[in-house]
Amino acid sequence: MQRQKVLINEERLKNDIEKFADFGRTAKNGVSRLSLSEEDISVRDYFCKSCEELGMTVKFDDMGTIYATLEGEQNKPPIVIGSHLDSVKKGGRFDGSLGVVAGLEVIKTLIENKIKPSIPISIVNFTNEEGARFEPSMMASGVLSGRFSKAEMLQKTDASGVSFAEALQASGYYGSQENRLKEATAFLELHIEQGPILESESLSIGIVECVVGMVCYEIEVTGESDHAGTTPMSMRKDALFTATDLLSEIRQQVGIVDPDLVYTMGRVNVTPNIHTVIPNKVIFSFEARHKNPAVIQKVEDIIQRLPSSSMTSGCKVKTTKLWDRKTVFFDESVCQVLEESTKALGYPYRRIVSGAGHDAQFISSYIPSAMIFVPSANGKSHCEEEWTDYEECAKGANVLLETVMKILSK
Amino acid sequence: MQRQKVLINEERLKNDIEKFADFGRTAKNGVSRLSLSEEDISVRDYFCKSCEELGMTVKFDDMGTIYATLEGEQNKPPIVIGSHLDSVKKGGRFDGSLGVVAGLEVIKTLIENKIKPSIPISIVNFTNEEGARFEPSMMASGVLSGRFSKAEMLQKTDASGVSFAEALQASGYYGSQENRLKEATAFLELHIEQGPILESESLSIGIVECVVGMVCYEIEVTGESDHAGTTPMSMRKDALFTATDLLSEIRQQVGIVDPDLVYTMGRVNVTPNIHTVIPNKVIFSFEARHKNPAVIQKVEDIIQRLPSSSMTSGCKVKTTKLWDRKTVFFDESVCQVLEESTKALGYPYRRIVSGAGHDAQFISSYIPSAMIFVPSANGKSHCEEEWTDYEECAKGANVLLETVMKILSK
Repeated sequence: MQRQKVLINEERLKNDIEKFADFGRTAKNGVSRLSLSEEDISVRDYFCKSCEELGMTVKFDDMGTIYATLEGEQNKPPIVIGSHLDSVKKGGRFDGSLGVVAGLEVIKTLIENKIKPSIPISIVNFTNEEGARFEPSMMASGVLSGRFSKAEMLQKTDASGVSFAEALQASGYYGSQENRLKEATAFLELHIEQGPILESESLSIGIVECVVGMVCYEIEVTGESDHAGTTPMSMRKDALFTATDLLSEIRQQVGIVDPDLVYTMGRVNVTPNIHTVIPNKVIFSFEARHKNPAVIQKVEDIIQRLPSSSMTSGCKVKTTKLWDRKTVFFDESVCQVLEESTKALGYPYRRIVSGAGHDAQFISSYIPSAMIFVPSANGKSHCEEEWTDYEECAKGANVLLETVMKILSK
Repeated sequence: MQRQKVLINEERLKNDIEKFADFGRTAKNGVSRLSLSEEDISVRDYFCKSCEELGMTVKFDDMGTIYATLEGEQNKPPIVIGSHLDSVKKGGRFDGSLGVVAGLEVIKTLIENKIKPSIPISIVNFTNEEGARFEPSMMASGVLSGRFSKAEMLQKTDASGVSFAEALQASGYYGSQENRLKEATAFLELHIEQGPILESESLSIGIVECVVGMVCYEIEVTGESDHAGTTPMSMRKDALFTATDLLSEIRQQVGIVDPDLVYTMGRVNVTPNIHTVIPNKVIFSFEARHKNPAVIQKVEDIIQRLPSSSMTSGCKVKTTKLWDRKTVFFDESVCQVLEESTKALGYPYRRIVSGAGHDAQFISSYIPSAMIFVPSANGKSHCEEEWTDYEECAKGANVLLETVMKILSK
């Protein structure tokens, strides 16, 4: 059977992206919409109203995650499209929001083309993906997948001491556990890349194969604080000197492990951090990410072989593994449908990995899942300058639509 | 004329050190006595009362500095002994306090030996040497020497917004400008070394030749903040990587300039300092101290030759000179009297330099001045573990007494 050829409406998608960005829009055209904040509740209300106006049924579960469902001809497990509407403080208009708004655009396109889906289609808005107000991130999808305990999550508090349970209760979005996402035919998450690869290669679409595994360490160097003016160099135990040596050593060794490996020492705290006092403690973070567990293992070997004390400076070195997460591979058959859809639309694309975490990585543990990336200008995200051309957003939404159509026609 | 041979009373000195330490004594046997705090006012009151009981005349000047004077046979410029009674937060019992208490012990010894001095002897307690409550340090001696403007100093505020002027007025120690230290025969400051040299060489006395010059820079590295998981290594502008390279380079080059040079990078601030974000800014301090200006110049040449941008990382580097101070040499004739006195007493000693700043360095600009150091256990100071054996304190006080006797007999 020859399927009807449909495309989403780029102008309408653009307007919707901007309409959603009005909730929590910052002076510099970014978005501040912390989970379950006033702004988040407003955008949720608007999202629910929009879905209901399209004839969808809206429910929410016991973590506040919203599901809006368009009925199908058969009452089978739905195709689920979605992402998250919460943002970091002074974040962008696209991160998360695009995946939800594009879901809405897919539904609008189906309805205006009078396409009644063979099975239900749901749009999902996961609560607290960012973890910017309540840690950890991907909280609701973590509970859905059994990765996090709901009881523990309810007790998490924000900076002002409000618990997640209190915020959820007050939001009006505390629903029933029965409404949780259970079975589904597929879960599709369209998201901005948040990195520079697609743009630098002039590609429109990334078919995300996996969320790469990562490992996180903390390295603590302990020396002795003495007066910077009165302590001869040879009698010092300068924790910063030793930390500098370690940072250089790690870069040198880890830097040659694999070209696709990324590693970062993002946090460095020096104590007492006074210019006239020799540092007695430096604590720095180290994290590394790669698809291949064997590469991560090589990195761990390097970190664990770091000396426990410095021969030259007399400082002590303590290396602590904070946590790791394994690479999550997305469903290859869903990836193939995404790839076929992208090819059919003639968009330039590549297979890509995700270095950042996403709800889809948890959902993929029980639902065939995959992700679509669209380019981030200059690779920027989690900032007000975050930008993706509307044309690229539209391409991502068309891949989503085409994929839904393919699955529906199977 | 054969002078009378006198020694101070070690037991009495020890009791006085401990008595003074009672004002602001911490649980761990240190002292918290911020300038013009309640504790500082109490110790000032006790000091004044002690001096008056010895028949001394107590005055204070318009910066709150206290002068207690024992009359001499002739009304000539006095010999001045002293230091400061304020401390840093959770500081020690000896820093500053020793120089004042030893002055008191010298007077007590003279009186009990019925020695009427030929010229007056004053004990001075300089206000706010530490700069721990109101910056800058050595505030009152800085005003006396014309280095600081009194009007500016009066406006300095503490962390809670109280101005120095308000604190001084409220303390009851706001005296007349007429009482300022003007002419004097000599100024002698006994102080703990605050470094490890005397102890490591098993010496009791350091004759301080100078307070070494120093230079202070700030180095700012600017890169770009990107997501630690999504940005390939080759596309990063990691400010920490460049800062690490600079820190290593500075150590390598500055480390070989001169064996007596001391240099420190005590303060390092990384932005945004989040383990999942590539640092976009690292600012670190660099300071170096040496007696010889030519050595400091070599160090400055190295710092100023640092690249303004990193070829490999694309980061920008900005080097700013914050300030410097020249080496202050003490009066050589006073140093010689100190040395003769130490020899006469048979104490093991050496000539030494001071890497830390002291009131004497400002006073020496208009009064022949010198300092005596006694050993600091493990070189520790500005902490509750600060310690100098009472026996060593007594030796320092005896050198002070012997030097006073020598000057009086001239």
